[in-house]
Amino acid sequence: MKTVTAGIILIGDELLSGRTQDTNLSTIAKWLEPLGVQVGEGRIIADDADIIAQTVRSFSDLFDYVFTTGGIGPTHDDITADCIAAAFDLGISERPDAIEHLRERYELSELNEARRRMARIPDGASLIYNPVSQAPGFQTRNVFTLAGVPSIMRGMLADIGHRIEGGALVLSRTVQATGIGEGDAAAPLSEIEARYDGVTIGSYPFFNADLRGVNFVARGRDAAVLDKVEADLNALISRLSD
Amino acid sequence: MKTVTAGIILIGDELLSGRTQDTNLSTIAKWLEPLGVQVGEGRIIADDADIIAQTVRSFSDLFDYVFTTGGIGPTHDDITADCIAAAFDLGISERPDAIEHLRERYELSELNEARRRMARIPDGASLIYNPVSQAPGFQTRNVFTLAGVPSIMRGMLADIGHRIEGGALVLSRTVQATGIGEGDAAAPLSEIEARYDGVTIGSYPFFNADLRGVNFVARGRDAAVLDKVEADLNALISRLSD
Repeated sequence: MKTVTAGIILIGDELLSGRTQDTNLSTIAKWLEPLGVQVGEGRIIADDADIIAQTVRSFSDLFDYVFTTGGIGPTHDDITADCIAAAFDLGISERPDAIEHLRERYELSELNEARRRMARIPDGASLIYNPVSQAPGFQTRNVFTLAGVPSIMRGMLADIGHRIEGGALVLSRTVQATGIGEGDAAAPLSEIEARYDGVTIGSYPFFNADLRGVNFVARGRDAAVLDKVEADLNALISRLSD
Repeated sequence: MKTVTAGIILIGDELLSGRTQDTNLSTIAKWLEPLGVQVGEGRIIADDADIIAQTVRSFSDLFDYVFTTGGIGPTHDDITADCIAAAFDLGISERPDAIEHLRERYELSELNEARRRMARIPDGASLIYNPVSQAPGFQTRNVFTLAGVPSIMRGMLADIGHRIEGGALVLSRTVQATGIGEGDAAAPLSEIEARYDGVTIGSYPFFNADLRGVNFVARGRDAAVLDKVEADLNALISRLSD
């Protein structure tokens, strides 16, 4: 079964200034995992029309699916829809079906020019329903354009799952060890990894206020093989803890 | 005064799987702000030697400073130092000065092959002191290579500030509004932005469990001008709240 990949583009000056902490990448990655889609790369880019269009174009070629978050609201700094249209040389206009979505939330009198901008959709794109605040996302080719606000972004994912053709599932096993040194585990860890085809083992130290340790995470596609790897990891930890 | 920029490269499969939530980008961005350095782009990439080397090379050309986090520990998946050397066609070897740093923490008998890997440093790089766990980071040209564990990464920043030649400071003012619609504020917001040279205003809606509202963030370099923008924003909010 083939590997299916996704690229994630997080758009917004507020992410680059450190003012806003992104959580959308990990939400999307965890949501994609059981669909058999692996995130290959994430980019955090500025509200800059050229950079957005260029990144979307290159990610659309590089990955099976692309997700963008941010920049589809009603204000002047919301330029993502125009950039997606520019990336693929598409026209863009206010769409009656998108206005209908907005009408679930707004009275006609509230649909001023700014709010109507949220109904501007690249030609040929299909809408993505937004159950939280109704202004829709949209799919253009293999690119899903979503809101930046995490609760809205999560809501939109519900209307995307059925559009994804996933690949082989990647399974994982995590074994946590405290009180052993990552440097003592390094050599035997490589040996365990080398012993099993199609398995990668990552080693992730953590230093909390009251706890130091390492998480060993084995990833692969065969549950029976991962069971053996997990047993080996547990044996290694016991040996090093003695 | 010129604009000084930084690019941030976050390295690690665990970030792309969503297993680990990155916080290093915002830590570095907030730390750079008072030095007059603006983050231009962030990338989250896999533990893949070619991708790491290629991204480092391209960021080193694109930005005044580059920060990498992750992949400098003792295990087989820690390949960042080799990738930095490859990116710049440099040799790499175990360095006595780096071993000295490690000796602050480890007895000679504990310095096995895996731990000695943490003293492998690209030729000509200068070390970055690690006050938390001693295995040093290093600077190669305009690239700072730091640990991925947030507490260690933060510790290393203390040995970097004096190496940075910053540029013009970017100041910001945040005005929070609840109970008004972003769509009603959009047009007057554009007018306020257009009225002041060198000022950008971002509009960031938030939807918490118990609070919905918008943060307007004005950014610029002149405090007196920003004071006026802030007054205009407050006037706008009062008007819309009536």
